[in-house]
Amino acid sequence: MANAPVQRMSQLMAKTLRDDPADAEVLSHKLLVRAGYVRRTAAGIWSWLPLGKKVLANVERVVREEMDAIGAQEVLLPAILPREPYEATGRWEEYGPELFRLQDRKGGDYLLGPTHEEIFTLLVKDQASSYKDLPVILYQIQSKYRDEARPRAGILRGREFLMKDSYSFDLDDEGLNGSYALHRQAYQRIFERLGLDHRICAATAGAMGGSKSEEFLAPAEAGEDTFADCPNCDFAANTEAVSYGLKPVDGSAVPAAEDIPTPDTPTIETLAASLGVPASATLKNLLVKVDGEIVAVGVPGDREVDLDKVEAHFAPAAVELVTAEDFVGRPDLVRGYVGPQGLEKVRYIADPRVAPGTAWITGANQEGTHAKNVVAGRDFEVDAYVDVVVVEEGDPCPVCGTGLRLDRAIEIGHIFQLGRKYADALKLDVLGQQGKPVRVTMGSYGIGVSRAVAALAEQTADDKGLCWPKEVAPADVHVVAAGKALQTELALDVSARLSAAGVRVLVDDRAGVSPGVKFTDSELIGVPQILVAGRRSAEGVVELKDRRTGEREELTVDEAIARLTA
Amino acid sequence: MANAPVQRMSQLMAKTLRDDPADAEVLSHKLLVRAGYVRRTAAGIWSWLPLGKKVLANVERVVREEMDAIGAQEVLLPAILPREPYEATGRWEEYGPELFRLQDRKGGDYLLGPTHEEIFTLLVKDQASSYKDLPVILYQIQSKYRDEARPRAGILRGREFLMKDSYSFDLDDEGLNGSYALHRQAYQRIFERLGLDHRICAATAGAMGGSKSEEFLAPAEAGEDTFADCPNCDFAANTEAVSYGLKPVDGSAVPAAEDIPTPDTPTIETLAASLGVPASATLKNLLVKVDGEIVAVGVPGDREVDLDKVEAHFAPAAVELVTAEDFVGRPDLVRGYVGPQGLEKVRYIADPRVAPGTAWITGANQEGTHAKNVVAGRDFEVDAYVDVVVVEEGDPCPVCGTGLRLDRAIEIGHIFQLGRKYADALKLDVLGQQGKPVRVTMGSYGIGVSRAVAALAEQTADDKGLCWPKEVAPADVHVVAAGKALQTELALDVSARLSAAGVRVLVDDRAGVSPGVKFTDSELIGVPQILVAGRRSAEGVVELKDRRTGEREELTVDEAIARLTA
Repeated sequence: MANAPVQRMSQLMAKTLRDDPADAEVLSHKLLVRAGYVRRTAAGIWSWLPLGKKVLANVERVVREEMDAIGAQEVLLPAILPREPYEATGRWEEYGPELFRLQDRKGGDYLLGPTHEEIFTLLVKDQASSYKDLPVILYQIQSKYRDEARPRAGILRGREFLMKDSYSFDLDDEGLNGSYALHRQAYQRIFERLGLDHRICAATAGAMGGSKSEEFLAPAEAGEDTFADCPNCDFAANTEAVSYGLKPVDGSAVPAAEDIPTPDTPTIETLAASLGVPASATLKNLLVKVDGEIVAVGVPGDREVDLDKVEAHFAPAAVELVTAEDFVGRPDLVRGYVGPQGLEKVRYIADPRVAPGTAWITGANQEGTHAKNVVAGRDFEVDAYVDVVVVEEGDPCPVCGTGLRLDRAIEIGHIFQLGRKYADALKLDVLGQQGKPVRVTMGSYGIGVSRAVAALAEQTADDKGLCWPKEVAPADVHVVAAGKALQTELALDVSARLSAAGVRVLVDDRAGVSPGVKFTDSELIGVPQILVAGRRSAEGVVELKDRRTGEREELTVDEAIARLTA
Repeated sequence: MANAPVQRMSQLMAKTLRDDPADAEVLSHKLLVRAGYVRRTAAGIWSWLPLGKKVLANVERVVREEMDAIGAQEVLLPAILPREPYEATGRWEEYGPELFRLQDRKGGDYLLGPTHEEIFTLLVKDQASSYKDLPVILYQIQSKYRDEARPRAGILRGREFLMKDSYSFDLDDEGLNGSYALHRQAYQRIFERLGLDHRICAATAGAMGGSKSEEFLAPAEAGEDTFADCPNCDFAANTEAVSYGLKPVDGSAVPAAEDIPTPDTPTIETLAASLGVPASATLKNLLVKVDGEIVAVGVPGDREVDLDKVEAHFAPAAVELVTAEDFVGRPDLVRGYVGPQGLEKVRYIADPRVAPGTAWITGANQEGTHAKNVVAGRDFEVDAYVDVVVVEEGDPCPVCGTGLRLDRAIEIGHIFQLGRKYADALKLDVLGQQGKPVRVTMGSYGIGVSRAVAALAEQTADDKGLCWPKEVAPADVHVVAAGKALQTELALDVSARLSAAGVRVLVDDRAGVSPGVKFTDSELIGVPQILVAGRRSAEGVVELKDRRTGEREELTVDEAIARLTA
């Protein structure tokens, strides 16, 4: 067996800091900087120091092994990419300011790849000509670029980050389902091996396009995603993707709609108070502009509209809120008193909670007037039902009806069934078994490799510092020499013996650093086992401490080595 | 032992081509494309397919192991870098159009790193505060970006390429010499392990700045560098860096300079023919403009001026040839009859061959007139001696005088003693042992990882195709199933047994491909050993072929496996 590495802290480029960096908001940012794993190079752009690079490499190795295990083939595509294929799929424009664009010396347009669907599609178009060449899964582990508006949270959301992206190419839906299932399993194994607590959640496809998609979310305070989790059944979904079926009710007994004078009640609050009804009995109609056209969005008066969901529904059209100016020359739109009945020139979308048969108090399209007993499907038509309300804690599970729990989480993986969006745009066909061209169907799958490191830090850290699972830790054992020459000698000797037995060692052999600082640093750095050559070094007795539990035990050197190599 | 990978060609994304790509000029470009290792994504921008990625990863592994062995610490810095530090060292401007520059959404200036001296300097400035923190060597393996004017030669000179760059930080010259020596040894081990024939050559520092530098050159027809090699002693140098000491001669016996009428002899050829002397007896004075100022460059009439060397001498000033317009209003400059004597307003640099005491026939600064017996140091002064002639085959070795050989080569590594250029610009000090700040001295060291793959292809290929050394080959054995079901079964069985014994296998199990095509492909792909399950498969007899020597032998399956796992 080859010797495992021994890294001496006296030579290590990793300065620990006592204080949190001033700009750090989240735990992983604070700890990864303080423990000397990463340093900020520019806004959202990070350098990985030796300890950080080791953790990153460990995550990479696990990802690579599990991708290889499902028969995926590793490739390496460039990060700087020509404009044309992204123009062909529309993403050159759609990506907006998030895309880093640049020109070469000849004025040619390029971009820094945010993901590589287009280039992989062209690669397979070049390489595969027949059904015999499929299915195929290709992957790479590579730096990706997104010019985030607000790069924050340290390496949780950087502008340059390490990603594993893979792409599957199949002849038909059944094949795509198979490639998708392989990825789903591989991702579960990867996150289990990494020690990342995670949930698989239904997700929206977003800018990627395509039909089915699921996210792997790691619950953590610092997460930017919120997911809804059913305490009773298996349901879990990003709140962006919680979707209810339409359940019409019988509204035939509702009396005819009737206008009621409601002076000075332009808001739901004033209206509900004035009538003495709950806000949930009212219908709120939010006006938005979709590529300039005014559209009304109906939700129960006690609920908020999730504008991201409205945007997702109309994408790639741009959605914005109306302003006072938009009412000029529109006598049909009475500000504060809009109701869907009689709104003939305006498209109306509504949440499924506004199902056919439900009755509402809503605006009567006259100043100071509302209408009651306004029934969906009888008094007004809904052009499209879209899940647009902000999901709240306690909302019913769409599967079993139990009240949902909401939690913050970090998106660590995302798997998409793209279908033929990219193959259509770039004309990716192969010759089918019947001798005719078959359009290929694709999937795309990503793991945030650098983000997984931060997510792990978030989930496993305690109040003393980082606390890595063994598989990703930068070393197996942190050997601390308390300070005296004899102790350092013993520490280096134990380190050499552990190394020879294949145990990766970080040894704190620094001179002129107090034992207290060394102990604090060892807890901050978070290697799973800490071996201290301290007071009883002369007797050949060391202390072995479990970083997570804090349990300590005095052992002879031989016992300690036996324990660590078991 | 874990099973080694078995890659089935029926599933491999690597289409082989019968014909060379139309735009390919050099052997490695042709073969790496034809054998399915790489594909062009844009000019100078390449994608690595599965076989290519494996070779690249093997080279990376060797580089990493040897860098770790000299105690270098691996880090990973971003590729997208802020402008400011490059502005501070002057490289933001000096790099010219070769630097990819871009702006983020807020208009901030960034670049794609061509090398990372600035950022490493700042990193160490942040991390190291005392002499105790040094020396340190940091390295990374990362994509680098240079917007080459003429990206050519496939991956030998791309615009995005994989590089190992490392940086050493020392307190004094002795330390720098030590770090430099460690790199020199590590590079020798790396190239030996890779099987790359190479020479260590004296080099010029170029845009990097600093004092001492050496290049690792891999002799190859396709190389863009020329190096001079002494057949008698150890001397080897890039021709750009061949330098002769100044050897004054005794010119006291030379008669006084004398003008001679030489009508219609504006060129060296016409002059030498007219006087019946060799061109080497004449002094050629080339006029160039250095940032607009006219400067004369003197070399023996039979030698060419190497403008790159003139540029290197005056860098970062721009050097260009004079045109007819530059003579307007300059009666002191007589076109075709320029001589250094009496050229008072013009700086004069000369090659050491124009040493003090040497006598020349040269222009007399009058139309149709030359002068003879013009002695350097007596009749004219040389402002600076600079090695500016184009080195030619047979020029004397600067060390032993033997005639030099010239060869083409690929630069695969470069080591530099930077000294304090970057530390000065970015103020990198640490507290010294005497309690005073000490300015740090640096080295920088690069290996072209992707280029090494191409250089290996160039050096090892034969007329049948690629022919990899074992350490970098994409597999250890290429198992070819000639075609029948029985043969495929045997091939897969042998592959599984080899894999279980830790041998990496590529197995050609393709259906509907003729044995001839499979054999041709196996030679093109270039795995060191080829095992064919052919005619005698039923008897359990296979053929084992050495790709390099072409030697073949019929063996039982057990014998073949024993041979390959020995």
